[in-house]
Formats: sequence, C-alpha cells, structure tokens
Amino acid sequence: MGRRSLLLLLLAFLTPGAATPVPPALRALSSLHLSTSFRSRPAVAMKYSIHYIQQKVDHFGFHTDKTFKQRYLIADKHWKEDGGSILFYTGNEGDIIWFCNNTGFMWDMAEELKAMLVFAEHRYYGESLPFGANSFKDSRHLNFLTTEQALADFAKLIKYLKRTIPGARNQPVIALGGSYGGMLAAWFRMKYPHLVVGALASSAPIWQFETMVPCGVFMKIVTTDFRKSGPNCSESIRRSWDAISRLTEKGTGLHWLSEALHLCTPLTESQDVQRLKDWISETWVNLAMVDYPYESNFLQPLPAWPIKVVCQYLKNPNVSDTWLLQNIFQALNVYYNYSGQARCLNISETATSSLGALGWSYQTCTEMVMPFCSNGIDDMFEPHSWNFKEFSDDCFKQWGVKPRPSWIPTMYGGKNISSHTNIIFSNGELDPWSGGGVTKDITDTLLAIVIPEGAHHLDLRANNAFDPVAVLLARSLEVRHMKQWIKDFYASLRKMH
Amino acid sequence: MGRRSLLLLLLAFLTPGAATPVPPALRALSSLHLSTSFRSRPAVAMKYSIHYIQQKVDHFGFHTDKTFKQRYLIADKHWKEDGGSILFYTGNEGDIIWFCNNTGFMWDMAEELKAMLVFAEHRYYGESLPFGANSFKDSRHLNFLTTEQALADFAKLIKYLKRTIPGARNQPVIALGGSYGGMLAAWFRMKYPHLVVGALASSAPIWQFETMVPCGVFMKIVTTDFRKSGPNCSESIRRSWDAISRLTEKGTGLHWLSEALHLCTPLTESQDVQRLKDWISETWVNLAMVDYPYESNFLQPLPAWPIKVVCQYLKNPNVSDTWLLQNIFQALNVYYNYSGQARCLNISETATSSLGALGWSYQTCTEMVMPFCSNGIDDMFEPHSWNFKEFSDDCFKQWGVKPRPSWIPTMYGGKNISSHTNIIFSNGELDPWSGGGVTKDITDTLLAIVIPEGAHHLDLRANNAFDPVAVLLARSLEVRHMKQWIKDFYASLRKMH
Repeated sequence: MGRRSLLLLLLAFLTPGAATPVPPALRALSSLHLSTSFRSRPAVAMKYSIHYIQQKVDHFGFHTDKTFKQRYLIADKHWKEDGGSILFYTGNEGDIIWFCNNTGFMWDMAEELKAMLVFAEHRYYGESLPFGANSFKDSRHLNFLTTEQALADFAKLIKYLKRTIPGARNQPVIALGGSYGGMLAAWFRMKYPHLVVGALASSAPIWQFETMVPCGVFMKIVTTDFRKSGPNCSESIRRSWDAISRLTEKGTGLHWLSEALHLCTPLTESQDVQRLKDWISETWVNLAMVDYPYESNFLQPLPAWPIKVVCQYLKNPNVSDTWLLQNIFQALNVYYNYSGQARCLNISETATSSLGALGWSYQTCTEMVMPFCSNGIDDMFEPHSWNFKEFSDDCFKQWGVKPRPSWIPTMYGGKNISSHTNIIFSNGELDPWSGGGVTKDITDTLLAIVIPEGAHHLDLRANNAFDPVAVLLARSLEVRHMKQWIKDFYASLRKMH
Repeated sequence: MGRRSLLLLLLAFLTPGAATPVPPALRALSSLHLSTSFRSRPAVAMKYSIHYIQQKVDHFGFHTDKTFKQRYLIADKHWKEDGGSILFYTGNEGDIIWFCNNTGFMWDMAEELKAMLVFAEHRYYGESLPFGANSFKDSRHLNFLTTEQALADFAKLIKYLKRTIPGARNQPVIALGGSYGGMLAAWFRMKYPHLVVGALASSAPIWQFETMVPCGVFMKIVTTDFRKSGPNCSESIRRSWDAISRLTEKGTGLHWLSEALHLCTPLTESQDVQRLKDWISETWVNLAMVDYPYESNFLQPLPAWPIKVVCQYLKNPNVSDTWLLQNIFQALNVYYNYSGQARCLNISETATSSLGALGWSYQTCTEMVMPFCSNGIDDMFEPHSWNFKEFSDDCFKQWGVKPRPSWIPTMYGGKNISSHTNIIFSNGELDPWSGGGVTKDITDTLLAIVIPEGAHHLDLRANNAFDPVAVLLARSLEVRHMKQWIKDFYASLRKMH
C-alpha cells in the first residue's frame, strides 16, 4: 500500500463512505440516506433542535481573541430536571447531524436515563468552521485543529449549557463517542473529570499510536474477518495482488482489467496499478469496519454480513489470473453496487472534496499519527512497512506541517492510564480498530467490553431485531454502568448539601 | 488600592522582592543573596548541574515547528537507581536557580528518598526564553506563555529524562512546587497522572479565581497577621491612610511626608499620594508572606517574625497624623532597611525591568486572573472593589490581550477536583495566599496540611533550628505520603512484571 492509500485508510476512519470512491449514483443515494436516516428506526423519532455557541478559535493562546460558531444539537424529549442526566456526544471528524442520526443507542436509552441528548460538532467539520471557507487554506488557518482545542470546546459548551439551561446545573454529564469520537470521549473524561462523570468510548483505538500495538494488527484483523467469512476468501484476495501485477505487465493488461472491473475511467499508466490496488485494499478495510449483522446503509447500502456475501465470490483461489480478478470484481460489486444501480466503478474519486476528509487528513499529519503496516503473511495484503520519514515528508508536502508521533501518548498517557476512572472501552472483535483499543479491564472502573460479533461501534447503533446477543448484553452493561455513575453523582451531591 | 498596585501585588506573588521598590543598596544585597544563598544552609551543599532541552515553542499547534532551549537543573548526589525516585520541581515565574536555592526541603529529603532532584525552569522566565530578547515584545511573541504550555514542557522533559538517563525509566516522579509553582505541581498531577505519582503543592492558591473564594480574603489574612502581632498594630495602619490623605491635602503635606518617610524622590503631584499608598500596602502584604520565624533573607534581609518587629512601632493609633506617619516610617524601615544601609526609601522603583515580573504581569492579564478586594472593615486597607472591566481594559492597554477569568476553573476543575488523587496541599495560616488554597482534606488522597505558624511555603524551605513544631510535623507528614506513593508505584510495577 502506498502512502496515499494509508491516508485514505485513515480518512476512512469514521467517514469511510466519503473516503472510498463511490459512483455518483450511489453518492446521491448516500446523501439521501443522511437526511432520511431515521426512517430505518421507526421506534425512536430523532427530533433535535440546532444551536450554535461562540467559541474561541484559540483556547490556548491570547494573541487572537477571535471566535467562531460551533454547532450542536439538543434532543430533550425525555429529559427530566429531577434526577435526569445529560448524554454528551463528543463529535468527531464529520457533520454532527450524521453522527446524531447514526448513534441510535443514545436515542434508545434517553427515556431510561431521563436524559437530554447533546451532540457537539467537532471544530473544522460540518458547519463548525473557524475560518469559514478559508479554514483549510493553509497551516496557519489549520493551526487550531487539534484534539486539545476540540476538548476545550466541549468543556466550554458543557459549562455554558449548565449555566443557561434551567435545571441542568446539577446534573451529571456522560461523554459518549465512537471511533475518533470515542477517543475524544475517553480523553475528555481523563482531562476534564470535573465536567463528565464518565465516558463510553466505543471502538476507540487510543493505543493505535507509536509502538503501543504492532502496526500490523489492523490489517491482520481485516484478514481474519475475510478468512472466517468463507472458505479460501482471504487467500483469494492475497493472490489477487500478484495476479493484478502479472496481468498489467502485459501490453493489453490495463485495458483488460479496466473492462473486467467495469472501471469508469480506464487504467492507462503503470502508476494506476498501485492506485487500483490501494482502492481495492480500502474496500476490504471498509467492509471489515461495517460488517454488520443486518442490512445497513451506514457507508454504502449493504446486505447483512456483507463480507460473507463478498466471500461467496472468492471461494476458489486456484484459478487463472483473469478468472480470479473477475471474481474480485463480483466481490467489489457487493460493496459498490448492492443497489444494482452503479454503471461503473470509480477509483479516482477520493475524499479530498469533502471537508471532513480534509480535516482528518490534516489531523493524521499532526497529532493523530497512527502507524499501519502489512506483511502479506499475517494478512492478505501486499507487504508494506511503516515508513515514518516518508509519511512525514508527504505531510510536509501536503500541509506544510510535520507530524509529532509521540505527542498523543505524552498528552493522554499511552498505556499508563490506570489512575483514571469511569471509562468504558467497548470494541467489536470484527472491527480492525479493535487492535488499537482497550480490550481488557484496566481497573474496576476502567472497563473493557468486547463484542465478538461486533464491527465498528455496533453498540452505538440503534437497536435492531438482528442484533447478536453479545451487543445487546454490551448495551445493557453500558447502561447499567452509566446508571451507577449517575447514582453516584446524585449521592455525592446530596452528601455535599 | 489602584490597579497598578493590584498588579504589583500579583507580581509579588512569588518574587515579591522584585515587585516592591527596593533601595539600590538593598537590591545589591539581595542579588548577593541569590548567588550565595546556600551559605545559610551549611548542612546540605546545593550542587547541581545545568542542562537544556529543546522544546517546541507551541505544543498545541503545528503551524510553527520552532523550538527553544528550556533550562533545568539536576542534583543526583543521593539518587539511587535501585528503589530511588525523582523529585521534580515545577518551576514558576522566575529564575530556576533562585527556586532551587530556596527549596531546601527537596535537598533535605533527597537522601531519605534516594532521590534525583530536577528543577525545571518555566518558559519565559530565567534563561528559558522562547524568542530570546524578543520574548516580551508583543502579544504575538507572548502567545505561548500559558500554564498549558508550561505543563507540556514539564511532560516532555520528564519523558526525555526517563528515556535518556540510564536507570530513570522505571522510577516514580513526584511533582513539587510552591505558590504558582505549587498550582503547577497540582495541575500537573491532575492533567498528567501518568507521568507523576503525586504532587506536593505548597501555598498554591488554586481557588483564588472567579468567585471560588471571597475576593477580600487575601487582605483579611494580611490584616489578621498584623492584628495578632502587636496591640493596635492593624488599627494604626488602618488609620494611616486617612492621615496621609489629610496631610497631603495641605500645601506643604507632600514635602513633609517625603521628608518623614525618607523618600529618595519627593512626592510632587497628588497622583503620587496613591502611588505611595499602594507601595505601603504592598509592603504590608509582602511582610505577611515572609513572616518567617527566623531571621531570613528570602526577599529582603529581615528579622525573625518581622511583623512583630514592625508592630512595635505601631502600638498607638491615637496620635496625631504626623506622629502616626513617623511611626509608619519606622515600621517600613524594618522591611526596607533591616541592614541599616539604606539611605532613603524608593517608591518609584517597580518590577517592570525584571523579566520575571513582565511575564507574570502578562499571565495575570490572560489566564491567571485572581480577583482581590478590600473594604477597610474586615481589613486594614482602603476600600477597593474588584473591577474586572477596568482590569481588563488595563490589560488590553498594556499587553493587547483580554483576560479570560473563567478559563482556569474550566481547565483545572475549580472546586470540583475530587476525582484526582495523590496531591498534598500545604498552607501556612499566616500566608495571605492560604485564603485561596485548599485547607481541608477533599478525599483520602487529596490532603490538606495547615501550618498555623507558617507563612508563604515555609515547608519548602530548608530545615531551621527555629522552625515551629507545626512545620516539622508538616514536612514529616509530606515525606511519609511521598514514601507511600513511591512504595505504591514499585508495588504496581512488580505486579505488572
């Protein structure tokens, strides 16, 4: 995998749909999905109000006193002043409405916890742009896109809500988030324990930094998902890379492959081969993240257990190169054309036109430096070592900044976090991000919940009839702990008065 | 008290000697003191080595990758690799060598704790200037002078020491500091508990912000010190302000007062009257801070229990204005001329020529916004309300920045810090800063130690034959807790292996 691919993979972190090439037809479908997503959960109507708060562009410096409007959503249908709580979603790298619509768990438990739901948008994403259209112009404008500034926004917002909403002042707040948002939820509890009584950090790979976990663990989990989803499935993919190389060495190979894979734009140069491989790799990665047990349209419209469906086309690795790659096309088609409406597959479309992707690309080039690698033995991908120098040079070329890989562990404690309390780390075993997550209890109050049949933050999704028992158990355990935090909060409040 | 006075009072926080006008002769004496200060503690020779580490100017942004040299001192005479520890002084607003020389407690306990002593200089003080001579040029250069940046420097330094000093990697680090440095020690444990096992925060007024304590508490304690140190002492001072006003209303008053107080520069304008009052107020404040039980030269050469000596001149408030002010002169002379070498008293000398004072002035105008007031009833000063608007306007005029008074409580938790562990807050009851400090246990591991006969961070000073029993007890309790933290650290280390 080339560096571009790695970046895309990172971009795919929470907005994988945006990061992977999507045929225009499907893109339209996808945006339709966003605005009507609660159709799929008739049980809970997602009604929220939209608000804005003036935030300092720079919480950590006084040279500029400039402010910007941060967007946040509030849903208070089930909120009770008496004995209630506030569930605070620590928004991540995308439009907050999208996260709001895809975090059904919060909606599902609002009544039980008498909770007000708050969804806070992360600066530099969605509408919360510190410098409007200029926000991504250069490293000077991007200078305030850091986790520390984002956490400070959340802190100010919580204090503001408590000050201005009658009845909210003496209520416990719980931070929740998934993926990067899960990291933020955990880090928020670590750094601002006076503002939140606890955090649910779902699929939060807080240890996917420096050398805390092997860089290959991510691709290994992706591979395991495919290996377990059908006979010879991962082996077929492993062999596909050489097949592509062999085919495209020949004069007519590029043309044949373009036809076989129904690419919208034919491959013309030898460079295109690597781009193709990167795009296919990303597809497998994305499938591993959204390998949900029911038909879903989180990133793309997909069948239940999509990898199983994909693997039906990849049962036989002992075929000719052309046959193998025709099978690969069928497999890709599951991801890109479940709707049956795509007329061709587009590998040139990248996430760079999306603000979310831009911001995340910058974040991976500064603080969020997560090493990835593959070796082709423990995983089904082509060998690719983690080359920090090359990564750093590319970052400097693209953004004019240099990544600081040791900063996040210095700031947030790395593996040494046992002095903190009241954080639940939940992970799905199918999710490649679980490799960088906390999957064993650290203390009595730093808990790990592992969901064997879970993909990327499945527990944060709305209740579904096809949910495996494990995720139902996980959610009920999560609710039980949150209730305990709320109870402890009110008990200590009574003690004080 | 005017705003200038308040600022000076803040400047006086930890370098009060620099903030109050000192006759040139004494200033020379004072700097002599700095370089030979360990003469007064023959028991422990303070031998340290001087080092520098490259630090990012901006830990929280990536637009600039500029670095600067942070100075730190190491004393490892008693350090043991086997079972040892690292005592880390979180430097505050001044030259680190001065703090090193005035923190005898660390030197006194080094052997018992097998400790390496590290004294880290605070950025923008001493030699640790991010932009050299330009560091204080304008708000752009001062932008990186914040507590968050300073704590990040400490974090990076500790990680660096652990990485580079053989044997240091698996050792417990304890943060220690006095006054603002005590705040930093406490906040460092709160924000970076993975790097320090505990903190001793001596005379750290972490609650002297917003409305957490009454703004008048500081001046009230100063007044109590004087009231208890001699009959009618505080009453004499209370009456002196009107006496000054009455006298200077007359044509010859300014001249007479200039003579009576032996001022180096005669008072000429009516504005000078407020300056004189401010200067006198600051003198009483400083005396309250350094009311030590033995002859000392921390800020000025002073007798033991200097307020008692001062109060010998202020026994009778029922005298004429001129008589009262001649007594005031005698009292001031205790502070400014204990050496007997001062030929006049200089009220025009301020701290603005000192880098330390400059930096601290900026900090009080940004993050470290501590409200002070007096009412003349609960205290012996002229009434002065806390006027944030006026304060803010003055800050903008002086530095081009606006203070953010709610930021420190938002960042560091205000009074809601009970989820943290292993912090000792020690305070002397004579110390006016104790009014903003933690003087009651918060939990089993957030402990308060109060020293009834203690002034400003007396416990951090070297052992002295005249130490009251209370400070000896305080120190021994502090050592006991530190030993427990160290023991707990090694126990959990063994458990991990």
